[in-house]
Amino acid sequence: MRFTLRPESSAADGVRIRSFSLGDIPGVLWTPDGAAPGTRPLVLLGHGGGRHKEAPDVAARARCFVRECGFAAAAVDVPGHGDRPTDPELDALATANGERIAAGADPYPLIAGFQALVARRTVPEWRAVLDALQGLPDIGPGPAGYWGVSLGCGLGLPFVAAEPRVRAAVLGLSGARALAREAERTTVPVRFLLAWDDERIPRAEGLALFDALGSADKSLHAHPGPHSAPLPPDEPAEAARFLARHLA
Amino acid sequence: MRFTLRPESSAADGVRIRSFSLGDIPGVLWTPDGAAPGTRPLVLLGHGGGRHKEAPDVAARARCFVRECGFAAAAVDVPGHGDRPTDPELDALATANGERIAAGADPYPLIAGFQALVARRTVPEWRAVLDALQGLPDIGPGPAGYWGVSLGCGLGLPFVAAEPRVRAAVLGLSGARALAREAERTTVPVRFLLAWDDERIPRAEGLALFDALGSADKSLHAHPGPHSAPLPPDEPAEAARFLARHLA
Repeated sequence: MRFTLRPESSAADGVRIRSFSLGDIPGVLWTPDGAAPGTRPLVLLGHGGGRHKEAPDVAARARCFVRECGFAAAAVDVPGHGDRPTDPELDALATANGERIAAGADPYPLIAGFQALVARRTVPEWRAVLDALQGLPDIGPGPAGYWGVSLGCGLGLPFVAAEPRVRAAVLGLSGARALAREAERTTVPVRFLLAWDDERIPRAEGLALFDALGSADKSLHAHPGPHSAPLPPDEPAEAARFLARHLA
Repeated sequence: MRFTLRPESSAADGVRIRSFSLGDIPGVLWTPDGAAPGTRPLVLLGHGGGRHKEAPDVAARARCFVRECGFAAAAVDVPGHGDRPTDPELDALATANGERIAAGADPYPLIAGFQALVARRTVPEWRAVLDALQGLPDIGPGPAGYWGVSLGCGLGLPFVAAEPRVRAAVLGLSGARALAREAERTTVPVRFLLAWDDERIPRAEGLALFDALGSADKSLHAHPGPHSAPLPPDEPAEAARFLARHLA
């Protein structure tokens, strides 16, 4: 694992930013500046489709989790995204899906199938990233959390269901058809975000995914607007408080 | 309007508690202890069915709004509740409804009809209470907010829709059949709470009421459990932050 301290790390706002790579997986790690060695919770963040590990919503939440909670936060590029090379298999499937949607096919089952395929790669990748980052002296073997919506939920829910180190998750903007089994196996506290007028994920699919979650402690937070509507302005701070309650 | 300073008012936690009566309406007012004269937001809280102005959930939230936001908060007894005399008309209807429910009738339309009848009395009562309390030197003509679920929503939504001084509201545990028209006329920011396994308000009715709200800024917060399940432990603080954002 190789690390590079990023020039925009700023002692002024107390967040240290390091780029890293684990094999061919590029990632970013946000930690409290000058943190003493010791165990601290680590929140992994998943980015949206077509975006990357430093998309503004991901980076803003990562910084919020560091500043508000003193946690570490990390994000990596999904295969075929960000700094990773084009993936021929995923690319061909995405192109074929695009053509079918343009020809009038229902996009939702195609998106769900695509995400299930990608998750088969990202679950083991993210577990390896967790292993490696928890080897750092300022993170250690503490509890982990997860934040991700849309593609970040399609890939994140299988990860949360499979990884016992994850103790709480913020998920959403995804539906039950692809993820019901992973949802049933999920028992940690979950906050689930839903766009009320989502044009990609039918509302009933999103509600059914929340319903399917096996967690006794779960909450649904719905806001008006389409799939890409900005999340409510208080969402980052509320997510930080939610994760702090379960990981701190 | 007559006021009585309550002995449990405590400078220690900074909350001054006064009982009051406006005509035959008994109420309680919570304000910051030692507040200087000046305008401050006033949050009116509505209690649940069969409960009263100082039910633990109402009093806890009132104290939270005073301590966290520096607001004034007030609650009054609904006709036939708390310190008010039994109301023959409402009592007869409640008894008849109870018998019909025991005989197997669907309770939801009966509850909805009952609340619509009560709201015809409480909307003018609560407007009069707002008028009177805003005459106090430590409240004044500032913005108002509303918090109420279950009966507190069945009566509160008609009040919020009718009263332009109310600038934001926390509502919930109620359904569309009785309240869709009031919801459509509501345009202020609303946070709407829903019990996911509500045995009294069908889930689809609750979701439809959220959907019907005319507010551009609205959010649905659903939690597992039946109608009487405790609200999530972070709800009072989140409600305070929500109201503070829109009233302060």
